[in-house]
Amino acid sequence: MSGETDKTVLGALRHLIHHGPLSRPELGTALGLSRATTSPIINDLMRRGLVSELSTTPQGQRGRPVALLDLDDERYAVTGLEIGSDRVLAGVYSLRGRQLLRIERSATPDAVNPRGLLRHAAAVLHEALDVLDQEGRELLGVGVSVAGLVDATSGTIKYAPTLGWRDVALQAGVAEALGGRAPVLLDNDANLAALAELRRRRRDGLPTTSLVYLTGTYGISAGIIAGGQLWRGERGLAGEVGHLIVEAEGRKCVCGRRGCLDTRAGLSAIIATCLENASTPRRAGRTPIGISAGVEEIASRAQSGDAGVLEALADAGAWLGRGAALVCAMLDPRTVILGGHYARLAPWLLAPARESFRRALLMPAPEYEQLEVSGLDAWAAAEGSALAALLALADGISPLP
Amino acid sequence: MSGETDKTVLGALRHLIHHGPLSRPELGTALGLSRATTSPIINDLMRRGLVSELSTTPQGQRGRPVALLDLDDERYAVTGLEIGSDRVLAGVYSLRGRQLLRIERSATPDAVNPRGLLRHAAAVLHEALDVLDQEGRELLGVGVSVAGLVDATSGTIKYAPTLGWRDVALQAGVAEALGGRAPVLLDNDANLAALAELRRRRRDGLPTTSLVYLTGTYGISAGIIAGGQLWRGERGLAGEVGHLIVEAEGRKCVCGRRGCLDTRAGLSAIIATCLENASTPRRAGRTPIGISAGVEEIASRAQSGDAGVLEALADAGAWLGRGAALVCAMLDPRTVILGGHYARLAPWLLAPARESFRRALLMPAPEYEQLEVSGLDAWAAAEGSALAALLALADGISPLP
Repeated sequence: MSGETDKTVLGALRHLIHHGPLSRPELGTALGLSRATTSPIINDLMRRGLVSELSTTPQGQRGRPVALLDLDDERYAVTGLEIGSDRVLAGVYSLRGRQLLRIERSATPDAVNPRGLLRHAAAVLHEALDVLDQEGRELLGVGVSVAGLVDATSGTIKYAPTLGWRDVALQAGVAEALGGRAPVLLDNDANLAALAELRRRRRDGLPTTSLVYLTGTYGISAGIIAGGQLWRGERGLAGEVGHLIVEAEGRKCVCGRRGCLDTRAGLSAIIATCLENASTPRRAGRTPIGISAGVEEIASRAQSGDAGVLEALADAGAWLGRGAALVCAMLDPRTVILGGHYARLAPWLLAPARESFRRALLMPAPEYEQLEVSGLDAWAAAEGSALAALLALADGISPLP
Repeated sequence: MSGETDKTVLGALRHLIHHGPLSRPELGTALGLSRATTSPIINDLMRRGLVSELSTTPQGQRGRPVALLDLDDERYAVTGLEIGSDRVLAGVYSLRGRQLLRIERSATPDAVNPRGLLRHAAAVLHEALDVLDQEGRELLGVGVSVAGLVDATSGTIKYAPTLGWRDVALQAGVAEALGGRAPVLLDNDANLAALAELRRRRRDGLPTTSLVYLTGTYGISAGIIAGGQLWRGERGLAGEVGHLIVEAEGRKCVCGRRGCLDTRAGLSAIIATCLENASTPRRAGRTPIGISAGVEEIASRAQSGDAGVLEALADAGAWLGRGAALVCAMLDPRTVILGGHYARLAPWLLAPARESFRRALLMPAPEYEQLEVSGLDAWAAAEGSALAALLALADGISPLP
């Protein structure tokens, strides 16, 4: 196959990932190609098992069913791995983004070093591969998500404050654990979750020109979609919203500085403040609590009406709203989306966040419902990682099957 | 001419604005067109007088001169008008961006109302038109720049804090003053200055994937270039860096809130603080000083070593550096550029700004010289406004001559 054909095949694949399902003429028009040129491209993708044709009757219409092209949902899988300080998540997805399998493994605080977490990651990956082998599905790629500053080109974590890591070649480590069975890529959790949010919104017909997805997992980090594209920053370091300094003489942050937004509205800070303020204290002598367990604990205390916890959550929500307003003053996105565990805590965070958000905006526009909760759960980054592994095929980074 | 030809003609014009001068084969390749298809497009643009062919010998090479296409620099002009609280600037430029004429008119503080400033604007425009008529140049468009939140689509100023204006249909006002002689467009000064900076850097062969241009005229506002494109925000409100709240209990801002960056590092604040701290006070009873005059006054005091002024400038520089670091944490641009009057005050602002900038960055990278001073002067927004008027032709917004 010539280089040029390759490029149009990749373009067609990319378009179907973002905009499928489509009829053959719709795909041809979008690619600016004639019917005669489109046909061999589609045949190529179908022969590879990446695309299949489904017969469907258009909604609310009678008559002949229409053949639509979409990604094939049966033959392949992509996997998203999220590596965090308290757990490793592996989500296995079909090419259309259906979750086929989810594996969660808690990490003990003493194992929060690259070798310990890589062991966990290797274990969940092999568990996932076993299931895929049994089902006869082929793995096309693995995306790895981590909360921190990532150099996606070299596959290195430059700095992950919540893990305390600097310059860790995580992509190579996961690739080794995988034994070369599929290509591996690494990116920041916020970028990856924003990709998942973007696909979800596209498929739901919501506006997607611009959005900022705020992670609510470890630190607060932003995935920025501007002009319909992910903006990673010149060095891949865009979106470090958790480390915006919001108080001149603020609390000490894990990054070594003072007054970062994370010290007020990051989940570690929220959990710590809630538990300090709780009317019934935690039993003494218990081990430090991880993020996911901590979120469940404060959610259950909030549910039961613990006044100290409710107050702490309202305060955190107000800081979160101020942080979201900083994002808007800078970027003016269509929507700021509270993701990850913020969705779980939304019943108590969202109202105070929205109130302080509107107060801190320079030009509040009631017609823009700008502070929203993600429809994706704490698996957003894993889902986005799997999607990024799929997009790597269309971008010519990973080889087509 | 068919609609399709029109589109390719506009595409060729746009490419020459951004990347000219180019040889015919270079232009054809960039547009993905054959030699046969490119020729009539070029002929069309030459017949309209928008493009001319110049014969040049490639640098450092011998032999036959090469014919290069570029925008014609003789027949037409575009004008940029900057309307501020203390002055109206009109810059007349050739299509290649050569400044042909500059007119500056001070506004008295009592005339800072839409009608008063429009009168000034009309006067400088007519002065410019007279010169163009004498020279036999035709005006292709006028871009109008204002510091504030602008709805470019409707040509309305939504909110200009330094002018105290809300919902002013400025574009229509200027168009009326111009008597329909050329199309008029309106945009925010930061966006327009960033466009001028982008063209300057492209022509100088500097990297232009991403940059943030901070205006130093009235409030601090950012023109954001991401992925080589201007990001205006979903509602055109991106880049309100001056209204990032940087202090919880800060100084009162003209926008009605407290603690905005403008109250520390905006030029009004800098001038006021410098004059308060000056070792020899200003003569009492003098009228309030405008921005441009104020900048000259504090520059001359700093030059003569006034310790109070130097201290105030260093303090403002430190705040400016912190503001630039907020921009970087959010966007990770290749460069943050201090524009407008900041360039004039750079001898005293830049060192403290760079120091606090590096301290406030999460990941300082010495290889990135990220905080720079613009090569453009306080006329950047006027130059960008004229460029925007030219780009409006290529975007099909204004009619081709």
